[in-house]
Amino acid sequence: MNTETTNTGPTMVSAEQAEVEQTLIDRVVASFERCEDARLKELMQSLTRHLHAFIREVRLTEEEWNAAIGFLTAAGHITDDKRQEFVLLSDVLGASMQTIAVNNQAYKGATEATVFGPFFTEDAPEIPHGGDIAGGATGQPCWVEGTVTDTDGNPVPNARIEVWEADDDGFYDVQYTDGRIAGRAHLYTDENGRYAFWGLTPTPYPIPHDGPVGQMLEKVGRSPVRAAHLHFMVTAENLRTLVTHIFVTGDPQLEIGDSVFGVKDSLIKDFDQQPAGTPTPDGRDLNGQDWAKARFDIVLAPAGI
Amino acid sequence: MNTETTNTGPTMVSAEQAEVEQTLIDRVVASFERCEDARLKELMQSLTRHLHAFIREVRLTEEEWNAAIGFLTAAGHITDDKRQEFVLLSDVLGASMQTIAVNNQAYKGATEATVFGPFFTEDAPEIPHGGDIAGGATGQPCWVEGTVTDTDGNPVPNARIEVWEADDDGFYDVQYTDGRIAGRAHLYTDENGRYAFWGLTPTPYPIPHDGPVGQMLEKVGRSPVRAAHLHFMVTAENLRTLVTHIFVTGDPQLEIGDSVFGVKDSLIKDFDQQPAGTPTPDGRDLNGQDWAKARFDIVLAPAGI
Repeated sequence: MNTETTNTGPTMVSAEQAEVEQTLIDRVVASFERCEDARLKELMQSLTRHLHAFIREVRLTEEEWNAAIGFLTAAGHITDDKRQEFVLLSDVLGASMQTIAVNNQAYKGATEATVFGPFFTEDAPEIPHGGDIAGGATGQPCWVEGTVTDTDGNPVPNARIEVWEADDDGFYDVQYTDGRIAGRAHLYTDENGRYAFWGLTPTPYPIPHDGPVGQMLEKVGRSPVRAAHLHFMVTAENLRTLVTHIFVTGDPQLEIGDSVFGVKDSLIKDFDQQPAGTPTPDGRDLNGQDWAKARFDIVLAPAGI
Repeated sequence: MNTETTNTGPTMVSAEQAEVEQTLIDRVVASFERCEDARLKELMQSLTRHLHAFIREVRLTEEEWNAAIGFLTAAGHITDDKRQEFVLLSDVLGASMQTIAVNNQAYKGATEATVFGPFFTEDAPEIPHGGDIAGGATGQPCWVEGTVTDTDGNPVPNARIEVWEADDDGFYDVQYTDGRIAGRAHLYTDENGRYAFWGLTPTPYPIPHDGPVGQMLEKVGRSPVRAAHLHFMVTAENLRTLVTHIFVTGDPQLEIGDSVFGVKDSLIKDFDQQPAGTPTPDGRDLNGQDWAKARFDIVLAPAGI
């Protein structure tokens, strides 16, 4: 009871008032006691406590409550098969990233996870070692190579690596209406756990910001732009599936802040710029175009961690 | 930092993992630092802390996160001009009632406030002292009388009292499509702060429960029914506006639990049953119908409390 009362924060609240507020919380929490699903009961009771602690701490006004209802309503109405404003909301509040964090506990040197995002598809083509994922997507060619190992340093052969990214206009293939499949592929590590492919040097792009979430970001002075990134999903037998990105050292958006908080320092990689004419690792002729080179060594935790 | 870490609850979390989770919270909180509206900044930073504390405490799974997104999406899609699922959600989590509580601080013997509800309208007719609010709404006639005073016991003349209620089928006039105005009126206290009117003995009714909120209530074993009640809104110069209900002693739903947590013990009133033929206070002839009698003395806090 004493600790609960401190939840009301610095605002002066009488003991009588604190009692009224706490009694209400106790009643709402008790209302879930009949729930037969123990996990659902835990979720609803915890949600109740944190929601009420928020209302008490900020002394939410009725006008602010109305604004919150209006925001959720607008988010609901803009959401359809192709647009998910509640996911965006979760993303920009860092809730998506926190959910990733609690489900991918830090383990020895295992590579950190980040948000999955809405643009993964199942139908990405397979490419060989050193193949090109662009499929017509525009951007600076980028050679990406690395290894997949377990947390004891053993190479992981035959790990499946899915990679996907936006083109240099900031759009994924699925955001175009012509059905193209571009900027995505999957490949497998070789017997030494090595992989390499040609991708595109990632460029920053905004999350959809023409809805209530975008308006909120503008009101609070935040950028809707995501730091430039390249998506990875790595699966291998008996190892924990890794969903992550790599980011680009020097991307100014890293300083401004990734709009969905996906960045972890360990995931920021050098994309070394190579002047036109620099020989490519696999002898590919880039017709005088400049290119970049990045290395990403991936460490997978054991499954079930 | 230490207190934050305890927010993760009983689940064992390594110091390294706790650091990852806390760093994320710090980043999200910091992202709102540029907000020029100090109150909005406070709201978003507090929301962030409590939302993340919830996710960490329950160790929210990705499946549960998906279910939450699905719930909000369904709530958004059922919401329209006449149906407000987010208000229902706030109501059944007690968040509406907590907002009322923090905005209507307990003050001396001032009458307690409760939820406004979605059924108030501006167009209720005026009735004289002892007039009838039914306007054709069906139910047992009920004589309601009382006084309006300030917290020093002084009568408040000319206080405006709005009253509204459902009929005995559980529907407010606005829930019918025929444009009727029934079960609502306004009147004024006399020079001694007294009021009296004929209403209907309140009966319990469910909140709309054919949507995601109703499904949630069913899953957790909760009733969607509201305890029987009669709405009041009382306004008077220099006094705090009071929005409240009175409830009915002996209503079984009081035991089961009001679905929106609107009940306060001080608002439960005796509705004394009067056998058919019992003389009425104002000599009204009820044609052999039984009736009830309730008293509700209202105490208004000073404005600005």
